[in-house]
Amino acid sequence: MKSIKVSLKKRSYNILVGCGIAGILGRQIRDLKLGTDAFIITNSLVKNKFGKLLENNLKTSGISCRFRIIPDTEKSKSVETASAVIRDLAAFDKGRKVFIIAFGGGVVGDLSGFVASIYKRGIPYIQIPTTLLAQVDSAIGGKTAVDLSTGKNLVGAFYQPRLVFSDVKFLKTLSTRQLRSGLAEVIKYGIIKDRELFSFIEKNHKGILKKKQAFLEFIVFRCSKIKADIVSKDEKEEKGLRTILNFGHTLGHAIETAAKFESYNHGEAVAIGMLAASDMSVSLGLTDKMTFFCIEKAISKIGLPAKIDKIKLKSIISAHYSDKKFIGKHNRFVLISGIGKTKIVENIPLKIIKEAVGKRISGS
Amino acid sequence: MKSIKVSLKKRSYNILVGCGIAGILGRQIRDLKLGTDAFIITNSLVKNKFGKLLENNLKTSGISCRFRIIPDTEKSKSVETASAVIRDLAAFDKGRKVFIIAFGGGVVGDLSGFVASIYKRGIPYIQIPTTLLAQVDSAIGGKTAVDLSTGKNLVGAFYQPRLVFSDVKFLKTLSTRQLRSGLAEVIKYGIIKDRELFSFIEKNHKGILKKKQAFLEFIVFRCSKIKADIVSKDEKEEKGLRTILNFGHTLGHAIETAAKFESYNHGEAVAIGMLAASDMSVSLGLTDKMTFFCIEKAISKIGLPAKIDKIKLKSIISAHYSDKKFIGKHNRFVLISGIGKTKIVENIPLKIIKEAVGKRISGS
Repeated sequence: MKSIKVSLKKRSYNILVGCGIAGILGRQIRDLKLGTDAFIITNSLVKNKFGKLLENNLKTSGISCRFRIIPDTEKSKSVETASAVIRDLAAFDKGRKVFIIAFGGGVVGDLSGFVASIYKRGIPYIQIPTTLLAQVDSAIGGKTAVDLSTGKNLVGAFYQPRLVFSDVKFLKTLSTRQLRSGLAEVIKYGIIKDRELFSFIEKNHKGILKKKQAFLEFIVFRCSKIKADIVSKDEKEEKGLRTILNFGHTLGHAIETAAKFESYNHGEAVAIGMLAASDMSVSLGLTDKMTFFCIEKAISKIGLPAKIDKIKLKSIISAHYSDKKFIGKHNRFVLISGIGKTKIVENIPLKIIKEAVGKRISGS
Repeated sequence: MKSIKVSLKKRSYNILVGCGIAGILGRQIRDLKLGTDAFIITNSLVKNKFGKLLENNLKTSGISCRFRIIPDTEKSKSVETASAVIRDLAAFDKGRKVFIIAFGGGVVGDLSGFVASIYKRGIPYIQIPTTLLAQVDSAIGGKTAVDLSTGKNLVGAFYQPRLVFSDVKFLKTLSTRQLRSGLAEVIKYGIIKDRELFSFIEKNHKGILKKKQAFLEFIVFRCSKIKADIVSKDEKEEKGLRTILNFGHTLGHAIETAAKFESYNHGEAVAIGMLAASDMSVSLGLTDKMTFFCIEKAISKIGLPAKIDKIKLKSIISAHYSDKKFIGKHNRFVLISGIGKTKIVENIPLKIIKEAVGKRISGS
């Protein structure tokens, strides 16, 4: 098991990465003095597969728990679901010390963190991510949120967990599509910060897709380390450092919104967003076509889509205006000047954005 | 005009207190670089009386605005209202720089601050309190919240405003009942921290109730200063300092909840809560009966209630268990050892609490 620290003074916490480490969880919670009553937010699949394991572990450590199931879809990330979950949490809260466990993927994690941030003006929570996407990205860094119909993650808070507990054993039951979705974020880390990791994926894509355990541990550790370092330096995205994590996400979110969170999962949308952003980087002369082809190939090796189906250019462009990264009238994109090197560019002409997105639409 | 600083490093802000100072607001907003588009959350009474004044002032400074009316009742402090307001805010947000103005009393302020804290993970907001209660208390310190049916302020965030703008001219149109409600908090400041302020109220209660402007300015300044100092030292109520502001509030909240936020306004409930807490202080031997009588007399001079009507002891005791101040199984009350001196006491026997509340029930 490896431990990575997110350094945020009083709000510092550890990310534990390992395989089959669930047994030590109760002790961790006790050592952190998180509380006596665990409100576990999860989905039915995760509960059925690993619920008993978690429950027994907590019980052994004298922690009572209740499971709160939410549907496993982006639609659960709504103000309405948050509100319903809080009502149940208040009913569970018997005035002892209650804390939240986010036990699932990105949807569960984002919603749980948001609920923890606003219940009683903030109660402790921990992340036990069970998807690759959540382990390498969304469970780390305290960005919690729910969606509005006008855009993704428009309601939320910066609220750090007290522990991120990444057991790659939970990844065993992921579908290939879910695994690929997480790998989109892994490719992202390679592109923005870690050429070596990018090469690792290029070389070992077959073993990774077969969920070779050592490969998954390596990937989760490496990505967690990058994210922990960035978040430690720029928790609230005020210094422009954390911004680079949004590579591929401005258009990725727009695609998800335009598709009403149905046709594409997060990773698939981000893969297409990364291709569009790479294309824009080439158009603006920041990098050469070889870089673009390299990225296109890696995405294809992992089996992620490169094209969008049945969504109109107009809808994507319209949705991208709601992005939180917009500052006043100016757009703002994370682009690249090569694998491992980012550049933040503002005021990109709409024509260039449209061209790059247009090329991603099937039949173009 | 006087200025008081709330010192919280990067989150520091000023409280401006004066009479007829609305004219300088636009410049203040410009200087603070809050944004170009103001989303003003208010109630219809305040909008009808002072809406044009605010709008013209903002327009002169080149700031566009939209008013969002919420009903002027505690019931507006709900997750549902917050959610509906956010939807309208998102529709108003045209991608320029939007900020929120809380223009009203405590309900408007608490809800607006909460909305500002969670929209796009936090946008700037300012408080323009128009009631005495809000000017001396709720507009300062960044405690934002909405209620759940199980208890008051159970959903919220610590989120500081960028400016508190207290113009006592807004108090001119307050009803006597509203004025009295604010004066309950003023008496509280006297009891917990400022014997001189307490004497001032005892001596000048008639002039205060007639809204003598100089008296109101003095009161608002003095209370704001106390609250600003406490918040500067203990923003998130972690050091036990801010806790003293809850004097009278644990049972006050319980009374409001038990009365379903109908029969008693906040100040009235707090007045009764303060009497019960003072009574408990006597029972526990912390102070003498003279102190209790002194407080009882001040509350009576201001015309605040000393007894509860038509609510059962059982409902109040049951509601007080939901208080956020409970730590585990232990209760925790702010009591007094004299005017100006507080003492935090835990694990008070239920019998003593019941006795003190029982005496507040009419006919007892």
